[in-house]
Amino acid sequence: MGHEASGTIHAVGSAVETLVPGDRVAIEPGYPCRRCERCKTGRYNLCPKMKFAADSPKLHGTLTKYFVLPADFCYKVPETISLAEAVLIEPLAVAVHAVRLADAELGQRVVVFGAGTPGLFCAIVAREFGAAEVVCVDIVDRKLRFAQELVGDRNNAERLLQQFNLGEADVAIDASGAELSMQTAVYVLRMGGTYVQVGMGKRKIEFPIAEMCEKEITAKGCYRYGPGDFTLGIYLASQGRLRLSEFITNIFPFEEATEAWETAKRDEGTKTLIRGPV
Amino acid sequence: MGHEASGTIHAVGSAVETLVPGDRVAIEPGYPCRRCERCKTGRYNLCPKMKFAADSPKLHGTLTKYFVLPADFCYKVPETISLAEAVLIEPLAVAVHAVRLADAELGQRVVVFGAGTPGLFCAIVAREFGAAEVVCVDIVDRKLRFAQELVGDRNNAERLLQQFNLGEADVAIDASGAELSMQTAVYVLRMGGTYVQVGMGKRKIEFPIAEMCEKEITAKGCYRYGPGDFTLGIYLASQGRLRLSEFITNIFPFEEATEAWETAKRDEGTKTLIRGPV
Amino acid sequence: MGHEASGTIHAVGSAVETLVPGDRVAIEPGYPCRRCERCKTGRYNLCPKMKFAADSPKLHGTLTKYFVLPADFCYKVPETISLAEAVLIEPLAVAVHAVRLADAELGQRVVVFGAGTPGLFCAIVAREFGAAEVVCVDIVDRKLRFAQELVGDRNNAERLLQQFNLGEADVAIDASGAELSMQTAVYVLRMGGTYVQVGMGKRKIEFPIAEMCEKEITAKGCYRYGPGDFTLGIYLASQGRLRLSEFITNIFPFEEATEAWETAKRDEGTKTLIRGPV
Amino acid sequence: MGHEASGTIHAVGSAVETLVPGDRVAIEPGYPCRRCERCKTGRYNLCPKMKFAADSPKLHGTLTKYFVLPADFCYKVPETISLAEAVLIEPLAVAVHAVRLADAELGQRVVVFGAGTPGLFCAIVAREFGAAEVVCVDIVDRKLRFAQELVGDRNNAERLLQQFNLGEADVAIDASGAELSMQTAVYVLRMGGTYVQVGMGKRKIEFPIAEMCEKEITAKGCYRYGPGDFTLGIYLASQGRLRLSEFITNIFPFEEATEAWETAKRDEGTKTLIRGPV
Repeated sequence: MGHEASGTIHAVGSAVETLVPGDRVAIEPGYPCRRCERCKTGRYNLCPKMKFAADSPKLHGTLTKYFVLPADFCYKVPETISLAEAVLIEPLAVAVHAVRLADAELGQRVVVFGAGTPGLFCAIVAREFGAAEVVCVDIVDRKLRFAQELVGDRNNAERLLQQFNLGEADVAIDASGAELSMQTAVYVLRMGGTYVQVGMGKRKIEFPIAEMCEKEITAKGCYRYGPGDFTLGIYLASQGRLRLSEFITNIFPFEEATEAWETAKRDEGTKTLIRGPV
Repeated sequence: MGHEASGTIHAVGSAVETLVPGDRVAIEPGYPCRRCERCKTGRYNLCPKMKFAADSPKLHGTLTKYFVLPADFCYKVPETISLAEAVLIEPLAVAVHAVRLADAELGQRVVVFGAGTPGLFCAIVAREFGAAEVVCVDIVDRKLRFAQELVGDRNNAERLLQQFNLGEADVAIDASGAELSMQTAVYVLRMGGTYVQVGMGKRKIEFPIAEMCEKEITAKGCYRYGPGDFTLGIYLASQGRLRLSEFITNIFPFEEATEAWETAKRDEGTKTLIRGPV
Repeated sequence: MGHEASGTIHAVGSAVETLVPGDRVAIEPGYPCRRCERCKTGRYNLCPKMKFAADSPKLHGTLTKYFVLPADFCYKVPETISLAEAVLIEPLAVAVHAVRLADAELGQRVVVFGAGTPGLFCAIVAREFGAAEVVCVDIVDRKLRFAQELVGDRNNAERLLQQFNLGEADVAIDASGAELSMQTAVYVLRMGGTYVQVGMGKRKIEFPIAEMCEKEITAKGCYRYGPGDFTLGIYLASQGRLRLSEFITNIFPFEEATEAWETAKRDEGTKTLIRGPV
Repeated sequence: MGHEASGTIHAVGSAVETLVPGDRVAIEPGYPCRRCERCKTGRYNLCPKMKFAADSPKLHGTLTKYFVLPADFCYKVPETISLAEAVLIEPLAVAVHAVRLADAELGQRVVVFGAGTPGLFCAIVAREFGAAEVVCVDIVDRKLRFAQELVGDRNNAERLLQQFNLGEADVAIDASGAELSMQTAVYVLRMGGTYVQVGMGKRKIEFPIAEMCEKEITAKGCYRYGPGDFTLGIYLASQGRLRLSEFITNIFPFEEATEAWETAKRDEGTKTLIRGPV
């Protein structure tokens, strides 16, 4: 189990030049074949031979004492990022990937559906990419208050109704997986806007295809992360504006892992970490 | 009524340098404001102030003796293209726009759903863009035979089943407007493929959103035509491989326009033209 | 004379909906034909029929009491931007255009040659686009000190020598027009980097073409500004981090325009403004 | 010595699934580290750790009985392509890479400088990409006649003078390495056109930098080939329009390799092949 993880380098192979034992690293928990057309054309996240922790057949998750992976999928983190925070680089890389797919440009208006961790990360990454306005949408008041506090004055909830009316968002990202949000994402966009789907819920939804055509919208599926997403995530985290530590509500010792999972179920929206066995 | 039309220049304004009376032209039947952000950034088809024949309020269609429009939306056609064929430049421009949106590259595999005029035009444009393989899908045998004959050996119907199984199409274009086709378009694509929706049917459909995410597919709405689409359509038509004349089954005099509309209803898939009043 | 200007709307045509008399605006001093291929494809700055203040034949500059131009080339500025600062939106738009051409991405390393106004504007725009590191190069100590102060800690002069050695810049912008800078721009780039030429000096220079090939560098000429550059410049200025007022060293009344020109000649690197006749 | 080569698979490693002994293959003679930023972002030709035949330190060329390389850099060729023709896939891939970098679109006007093998390959690839007009420029009559015959009616030499006057080429490719050609390439381009440098001559040339700026031209260095270039080259060759065999003037046995090199020196512009030792 587990694919969000950080750790300390225990040993490296003889050809490894970039890491030494003791290095603190964020872990990209899947590595591709490096040889197929997807890998070579810069989209290794679409590699059909991807080995992904706790997902590919026979592959363990990262919740373990030692975890073996290629050196170029271990990313050193600076001292300003704790090992606990480094765990969050993985979901942050998902958000980096989504915002890059959205072609979000400086000065644009971005709407993010879902104010759980995935959505909040998308919102703060969009802000860091220079969005002029970031609107978070959720049905849970507590999450919206956290979003307001975290994303800051670019998160203007009062603008939301107007967005719905005018269709003036440049980018809409759904990180909720809720059918209604996915539909609304298309409606809030301006002519020629971009919609990116991050979270997954039902396999099929009712989709406003005619609206997509009449506004010539680009819709993109978003799958994990690709080249540069971890590096950029770490760069953003190192700038000190993301406040990653506020996402971590609990850190459990390995022996209490079961309790950790139970807590996570109850406390949706913030992160529960498990310290690996020593 | 009418927005697919050609004609002969009757008179030009004093500032017009590109046209003279007597010029034979294909007509782009909508013109934008030229001043909004969409117009200036190269996507004038998304201009909210577009004046489109027979569609915008108070605007007549092209089925008339004289039709006034800006000189830069009249495109001279070479002698090798008849005025009747020039009418087809408009639907051809729709196909050019769709294939360009699809980022169809040389050597790719393209599936087109719907073998009516829009679909066939997409298929032959994809072939002209260098597609290695173009597969047309339809439920009407007569249309598929025409497709086979028109698109040529790049249209390999026997490959279709394999496409469905393997998900190996680079590009899928739906020009049918049928819900089942739109869904299938997503399934036949390879990882990272592109789906373009041209025709419109129902306003909402059941859509395989999880499949779009897991394969990181780009889906694009396609709305009319934009910069260069008419010019490129005329260039393609002038190369002599499109066989536009075979799409025209009837040309009615203006007095029999009603009969023309009735015929069109019955003979879906080929074009019925009306000669304007003299 | 003059093409960097701001002003107050005196009167508007009957069709103008976006401006009213009294509005304070930055002026984009050239407007295109809106009808040619360049205009329609989103690159109106390359329109061969551009009417540019003080440059196109028979066209006055902006140093005048009244100046007539299309409404969509007047950009309202918020109250936080003074009319004097609004004059600087024009050179700022040049920098926005350059940085956009450079495809500068978040987290990248940018080297800017020339620490006069054009170079400094490129540097601060690159910083606002999220550059991780911005290095300004100049031979005048005073300018470099201003650059250090203005661009902030992303301007790491000590990194410069390393840049030269390793060829690790992602983007190099020359805003000096000096032959040696243009050559060096190519050398400091990493494999696959981008070089943008903003300022112009000699019409021909000795250019390291083999270096460009071996590193597969993209080199781009940069000409004025295009769609969205003024809007984005105003957005950046309104964020309050650009400190535009520090670029303005003198404001002369219209009657002392000659003295203003003389001062400008002597005080290169900061801006001398002339208040128009009242 | 040697980096243009084809061959027959002698043996494969146990993990290889795509090749079996006896397969006839074109050889991509360099392979990258697969792990650096360039490799992962789809530009492996810029990998600093590239192992390239007869170029990287201690690496033999392909002129040998057995040559070892990774399976994914061996490309099976169809029966319609002879082993001798398959040698030409390497220079053809260079041309594919150049034309792709040029963003050559259907219907465009392309000028190619240099009518030796590199230039002719660029010209025919540009034609296959759908160029409306391809103009080859050379100072040797014999080469131009071959170009005329090979490239066909899209190669309109009479249009050349007009190109120079009007600056109306969309794309200019220099494959001559001659300083004068590189300069002229910039002059023949339209506003916003693209210039790609393929061949290399002098390390530095006199370059019309102001012309590049005023027309906002994009200039690109072109280095070897990257993802998909061999595959697309083989696809083009398999279409039967390239007439590769006409480029091969001599095939020498291995024992006469010295004579082959001497012949190649005298017969510039067509290919001299050496059959490897048996």
